[in-house]
Amino acid sequence: MTNDVFIHPTAIVESNCIGKGTRIRAFTHVMKEVEIGEICNIGEHCFLESGVVVGAHSTIKNGNMLWEGIILEEGVFLGPQVCFTNDMYPRSPRLPQAGKRYRNRAWLLSTRVEQGASIGAGAVLLPGLTISAFAMVGAGAVVTSDVPAHALVTGNPARVKKWVCRCGNPLLFKQSSAVCKECGETFAEAENGVERTG
Amino acid sequence: MTNDVFIHPTAIVESNCIGKGTRIRAFTHVMKEVEIGEICNIGEHCFLESGVVVGAHSTIKNGNMLWEGIILEEGVFLGPQVCFTNDMYPRSPRLPQAGKRYRNRAWLLSTRVEQGASIGAGAVLLPGLTISAFAMVGAGAVVTSDVPAHALVTGNPARVKKWVCRCGNPLLFKQSSAVCKECGETFAEAENGVERTG
Amino acid sequence: MTNDVFIHPTAIVESNCIGKGTRIRAFTHVMKEVEIGEICNIGEHCFLESGVVVGAHSTIKNGNMLWEGIILEEGVFLGPQVCFTNDMYPRSPRLPQAGKRYRNRAWLLSTRVEQGASIGAGAVLLPGLTISAFAMVGAGAVVTSDVPAHALVTGNPARVKKWVCRCGNPLLFKQSSAVCKECGETFAEAENGVERTG
Repeated sequence: MTNDVFIHPTAIVESNCIGKGTRIRAFTHVMKEVEIGEICNIGEHCFLESGVVVGAHSTIKNGNMLWEGIILEEGVFLGPQVCFTNDMYPRSPRLPQAGKRYRNRAWLLSTRVEQGASIGAGAVLLPGLTISAFAMVGAGAVVTSDVPAHALVTGNPARVKKWVCRCGNPLLFKQSSAVCKECGETFAEAENGVERTG
Repeated sequence: MTNDVFIHPTAIVESNCIGKGTRIRAFTHVMKEVEIGEICNIGEHCFLESGVVVGAHSTIKNGNMLWEGIILEEGVFLGPQVCFTNDMYPRSPRLPQAGKRYRNRAWLLSTRVEQGASIGAGAVLLPGLTISAFAMVGAGAVVTSDVPAHALVTGNPARVKKWVCRCGNPLLFKQSSAVCKECGETFAEAENGVERTG
Repeated sequence: MTNDVFIHPTAIVESNCIGKGTRIRAFTHVMKEVEIGEICNIGEHCFLESGVVVGAHSTIKNGNMLWEGIILEEGVFLGPQVCFTNDMYPRSPRLPQAGKRYRNRAWLLSTRVEQGASIGAGAVLLPGLTISAFAMVGAGAVVTSDVPAHALVTGNPARVKKWVCRCGNPLLFKQSSAVCKECGETFAEAENGVERTG
């Protein structure tokens, strides 16, 4: 690890695979075998379990707990206190009646948050899902199925309510196409969602 | 700061603007330029960002994270693990495509929790809202619009379900008026809510 | 406390009533007069208030805050960031208008999580409830009423969606009875729920 990584004195960092320019804040624990890219901000009171991957340029606000099986691609935003999961029908592994479930790793489901996506504060993600590129999960949403690229989902269970640009701005579709008022990027309706056309 | 402020040895307190009789608990971080009034309780595992204001006699339970733009007036109650927000369409500020959004502070929306209001455990507040005086947000509610004074809101999205007295007791209206059975305070129906009449 | 209890150096443990083989992780605070059984795992960033009881073989993931009045029986699973409550109409006890409410302990409601039950990530439990044996609360659910044994509840407010075996596996009922495909345990429909028949 280089001198270009900032680690708060109260943080516990056991990984040596942390990119240049990344900052790790107070009271956070990064286990060994975690990979974090360059120029990330990992907030306070976080926990990153062995096996987690965080892409470059990501921002993880305070109070996030990332379990084995959680993969964040580049430029992801996690608002505060997002709840990830990796087991669909969890029991205490110390409960004798559940011993069989935890003999092997078949219970473990992965979640992938693709590049540029955002997860709002306090959102909850069921295990085994993909949040596609530049999607946005609203604060407090409970996500029970995959989220298409550029979709904004809210509610419990979460449903698509809007579409958003790469910059985060909501898109207004007219006759199956939209132009972002902030960026000028253009989008068209596509099968199962929208696609960027320029 | 006077000797009359209790700060747990594991807390990190950078503000010198904390009122007499206030207690700050373990593993909590209060940044500089935070103002906290007298006789408050700031629980464990909290984070108060520069610019936050907490009025006197407030109680902040454990696991609360208050961002720039969050203002709590006097006598506010925050249950555990409330999720505040200050950005409606967040992206990682480190994501090149979102750079324009974070050039200035136009993204920053404030939230005001007025005197005597309560926010239940695990509630999520969208940015830019006012929770009016003596309102009560139910545990787990996702608040997407302003909450009127004395309203009790629950659900996702949160809706008004009852009205409550300043003491917290629910009010039973008969012919457009109510008397609190605990306090004897009186209320009348009013435009957009209720008002206290004595 | 014996040498058989693991306590992370950053944890604050004031109880001397912790069972053999139990592990207490980083940045967690266990107050005095907390009882924890044998072979439990108490995750990071947790808070256990005086009066809390945790049964043997329980697993408490990170970010859980257990208040006075919360009782977990044996073999319970708490996913990350579960929100417990113990006051139905909370106000800041430091708010003069709420002083009467906090003169005595009548506001305090208990929650019991019975043996083998699981509470999913980020679930919120209203005060005064019983989560019966081997029930399962879905991630992000907001629980407003008692949960019957073996029920799986989800949503806000939470409703029964399925039934699950002691091992966690969902049950498929045919003609009022079900056999767990993982365990071979058998169940029958019963008044207000299901019962295990073998």
